[in-house]
Amino acid sequence: MSEEKKGLSRRDFLTAGAVVAGVLATGQILSNKGVDVLSKAFAGESAPAWPWPYKKLDPEVVRKLGYQGYFEGGCCYGAAKAMLTELRNKVGYPYTLIPEDMFRYGEGGMAGWGTICGALNGASAIINLVSTKESWNPLVNELLGWYTQQPFPSRLHDSYSKFPNQVQSVCGSPLCHVSVTEWCAKAGVKVGDPQRKERCGKLTGDVAARAVELLNLQADGKFVPAYKPSEEFASCLGCHVGPQSTLFNVQGKMNCVQCHEPHIK
Amino acid sequence: MSEEKKGLSRRDFLTAGAVVAGVLATGQILSNKGVDVLSKAFAGESAPAWPWPYKKLDPEVVRKLGYQGYFEGGCCYGAAKAMLTELRNKVGYPYTLIPEDMFRYGEGGMAGWGTICGALNGASAIINLVSTKESWNPLVNELLGWYTQQPFPSRLHDSYSKFPNQVQSVCGSPLCHVSVTEWCAKAGVKVGDPQRKERCGKLTGDVAARAVELLNLQADGKFVPAYKPSEEFASCLGCHVGPQSTLFNVQGKMNCVQCHEPHIK
Repeated sequence: MSEEKKGLSRRDFLTAGAVVAGVLATGQILSNKGVDVLSKAFAGESAPAWPWPYKKLDPEVVRKLGYQGYFEGGCCYGAAKAMLTELRNKVGYPYTLIPEDMFRYGEGGMAGWGTICGALNGASAIINLVSTKESWNPLVNELLGWYTQQPFPSRLHDSYSKFPNQVQSVCGSPLCHVSVTEWCAKAGVKVGDPQRKERCGKLTGDVAARAVELLNLQADGKFVPAYKPSEEFASCLGCHVGPQSTLFNVQGKMNCVQCHEPHIK
Repeated sequence: MSEEKKGLSRRDFLTAGAVVAGVLATGQILSNKGVDVLSKAFAGESAPAWPWPYKKLDPEVVRKLGYQGYFEGGCCYGAAKAMLTELRNKVGYPYTLIPEDMFRYGEGGMAGWGTICGALNGASAIINLVSTKESWNPLVNELLGWYTQQPFPSRLHDSYSKFPNQVQSVCGSPLCHVSVTEWCAKAGVKVGDPQRKERCGKLTGDVAARAVELLNLQADGKFVPAYKPSEEFASCLGCHVGPQSTLFNVQGKMNCVQCHEPHIK
């Protein structure tokens, strides 16, 4: 950070310039392997300071990329790859440094455990990567809140989908377990059926596209948090959740009554 | 991958060598800013192929780093930073390319939502980064399963903890909501109390250390999956979860009876 704040010293500039000139003089761009060799000579050097630079992306391009990526490596991979791919197209370096393969683990709510929806997990990591210490939290919070109230999948993949016009459901939870299980019940299909996978592919694109919409609003200074907990459990929070609550004995923002019986009618 | 397999061509080697020689001739190592300038000249080049190389790490070093990292940036950041830091110490590049700050979002189960424990999230991303397409899943599955049956926090931080000998609890779930809320009830403290934060700091270190133990076993070819669902819900899975189940209508591996009434006694 302090390095970044000091700016580029004259000596750094001349040194870097000399090396770049050397590269250009060879008349070609180095291969990955060449960059490896070179980078090892800089052992101890690191990627640019966080947050990484953001340029506004097209949510519809990211929506389709997310859908496609799901079928390569699952929901978390699909959402992260969609955003990284468009950041590489629009910004380039340093988004070339992070392998999307590191996001495979999030599939099915972390190796199939049904915890956080992998699309939310992958998209939130990239939101965090391009946001500041103060701004990632409201955006990730908004993305999760929006997800709990959104009918999935959207109709916006229907032109290229094998299963257009699928049943939609609002699951009320950011958990893969609730999201997938309730959709399957409503659609009358099994978890392993191709229709369910198609639904999660579309959802992956929808979540990545929403993350980009939020980041675009942030880039324009126009992001305003809109998510509010539903009335069904908003009253629980006043007693149980957060520093302002009377008991402050519960961690989380999920819908209480999906698992707990309400004790005040 | 194919680039990697082909090995370093003679032309690549000469080119890279010439540039490295140029760097060495300047008699100094470039600053981050210098690397930025240089790297931009290589636009389109990327990090080495996944998976990234692993060397066995000391779980006890990582345990303490995870504890310390928690107080800088939360549980997900703490676990990921602990593992990245030791990978930088033992391997160096390319672990210098990923900013640990991108893992802040996982805190409190994703921006405080109480979904997946952030320590599990951050540690699993790094497990994935150094494992193959076939091997990340059994390791992440083992880490989550172990977590659900482990008494947290361990006593292994007590020599430097402000709150040694804390109450321990086994929460039966990989969710932050269950893990934190049940521990607070047992310990008789509020979610915002320093004792709770101390407990989550220790847990962050414990999870990162366990991830390293699993990776070390994998590196030695000695990893054997040990996690089994408890009897309490193992019988649910036969009907509801996985391709072998009769209904296959539920997504997830979490303990069913924490939220659902058992319907077969």
